[in-house]
Amino acid sequence: MPALLAAVEARLVALAAGHGPLLGAHAGHTIAAGGKRLRPLLVILAAGPRAADRPALIASAAAVELIHSATLVHDDVLDSASLRRGVPTVWAQGGRARAVATGDLLFSRAFAEITAVGSLEAVQALSRATSALAEGELLQRQDAWNPAVALDRYLLRCELKTARLFEASCQLGALAARGPAAEVEGLAAFGRGIGVAFQLLDDVIDVAGPAALTGKHRGTDLLDGTVTLPLILARERDPALAAVDLRAITTPEQAESLCDRIAATGVLEEARAQALEMVHAATAQLAPLALDDGQREALSLVASSVADRRA
Amino acid sequence: MPALLAAVEARLVALAAGHGPLLGAHAGHTIAAGGKRLRPLLVILAAGPRAADRPALIASAAAVELIHSATLVHDDVLDSASLRRGVPTVWAQGGRARAVATGDLLFSRAFAEITAVGSLEAVQALSRATSALAEGELLQRQDAWNPAVALDRYLLRCELKTARLFEASCQLGALAARGPAAEVEGLAAFGRGIGVAFQLLDDVIDVAGPAALTGKHRGTDLLDGTVTLPLILARERDPALAAVDLRAITTPEQAESLCDRIAATGVLEEARAQALEMVHAATAQLAPLALDDGQREALSLVASSVADRRA
Repeated sequence: MPALLAAVEARLVALAAGHGPLLGAHAGHTIAAGGKRLRPLLVILAAGPRAADRPALIASAAAVELIHSATLVHDDVLDSASLRRGVPTVWAQGGRARAVATGDLLFSRAFAEITAVGSLEAVQALSRATSALAEGELLQRQDAWNPAVALDRYLLRCELKTARLFEASCQLGALAARGPAAEVEGLAAFGRGIGVAFQLLDDVIDVAGPAALTGKHRGTDLLDGTVTLPLILARERDPALAAVDLRAITTPEQAESLCDRIAATGVLEEARAQALEMVHAATAQLAPLALDDGQREALSLVASSVADRRA
Repeated sequence: MPALLAAVEARLVALAAGHGPLLGAHAGHTIAAGGKRLRPLLVILAAGPRAADRPALIASAAAVELIHSATLVHDDVLDSASLRRGVPTVWAQGGRARAVATGDLLFSRAFAEITAVGSLEAVQALSRATSALAEGELLQRQDAWNPAVALDRYLLRCELKTARLFEASCQLGALAARGPAAEVEGLAAFGRGIGVAFQLLDDVIDVAGPAALTGKHRGTDLLDGTVTLPLILARERDPALAAVDLRAITTPEQAESLCDRIAATGVLEEARAQALEMVHAATAQLAPLALDDGQREALSLVASSVADRRA
């Protein structure tokens, strides 16, 4: 498993360095400078020890990380973000035009990479996930500045924006290992479940901080007009919060003060509890599957680490 | 052939309308409001009358047009363009974030669509072309404001930005018709050749206008810092043009006056002659191929229309 992850890392470095100086210059940092590599890890763990087709597995893992990197580069354009993983973003270094084109190039390379798997099912899994990512982003913009956004709608956004690529990662791993259909489906459901929880906790962390750990101000979502679970839960407990005009929140200080008001309602613990429940439900999807013991344990560990995330 | 084009049109309308309200709201105009449909036409003509696999042909034609639409939506973000084909751009209507996400969604749908062809070769042809598009865009940004940019470099940009998708269109058509390898290659070379000429004439038209026909000011490229064939040729004839500081050109009036100076050197006719020569060379690629007479004639007609374009 570590050998496979190292091979994926080598492939990502080769893609960043080898695809002409352009990709290297603009996206090299984003794709090669690290990050958790959670999606490639899911690909590899979903395949388990049977993994017959090593090149397919490495290509799948590299492809999902390329898609993830593409969305990060484009997100930074949307948010005018200057730092990502501690290094200047493509947007900050090269401007809007270069960042849009670099994201497009990463998307394209992901689809080139996934063809190496040699399966149209794999291409479809990836294109469905990337469509979902873009739809989730569009929904989020549609919902912007609306403090009354419904919980269901929020959860749908989490699924589209985040969970579908987790799902595709597990699917691709299971496909590369030529698992039976029930296993592919079960692993996909597991990935989707922990993906929603991952996004939910991301949104909790944006309110909870601490900034020292996350490297950014609390309340960046609120400044963006993005209403997430903490505010959705908190507006029920503190009706004054439902009446807040998010467009009037324009400074980091105002955002942090709103975060404090949200946290004071006690909803952050409730949101964490919901995420934990989702992770348990996702892990339960693995129970009926005939997985290798080590594989099952490793997947559960990833699920726990998602549930425990604090930054 | 008209029936096939109508089927592609119907497919594009269905994709715009049927993919949830989001794609319809933001990209519907761009993909359904017309345009020349030159790339789908190339797919269909490259397949010729033998076209055995009609669904593959329609999916290929829709996919190349989706990619083209995606790049238009993203280009409008880069250029902050408010009108496209006479209607407000996604960028103007929905802002930067929606436009970036809409372009990403169109890209993703193109790859979903191309899997319907049932051939990894088709996916690869599309992903190679989209990578080239993004690389061309990055090169263009790298060259921005540099009046000394070399002719070779400019031609490479034309190939990447424009010709590779024309090439892929012809390839996809030939593949759907299950043509022999030599035919696929010959048609691909034809597509590439007319694609470069198409871009070259696009750049001539940006200098030549007339605005009444193109619907935009002359010299938009110059305002963007994009140095194209007319200025590259003109700077040899009028050394004062080589010394122009493009960053000082900030108003449409200044840009139009620079266009006049470029046109006065007589290079626009030279550039048109080069494009015409390219189109002839591209058409000559068809000579050794065993095409149907009507197909050969139709492809030559498309080539002529590219050579004759004035707006």
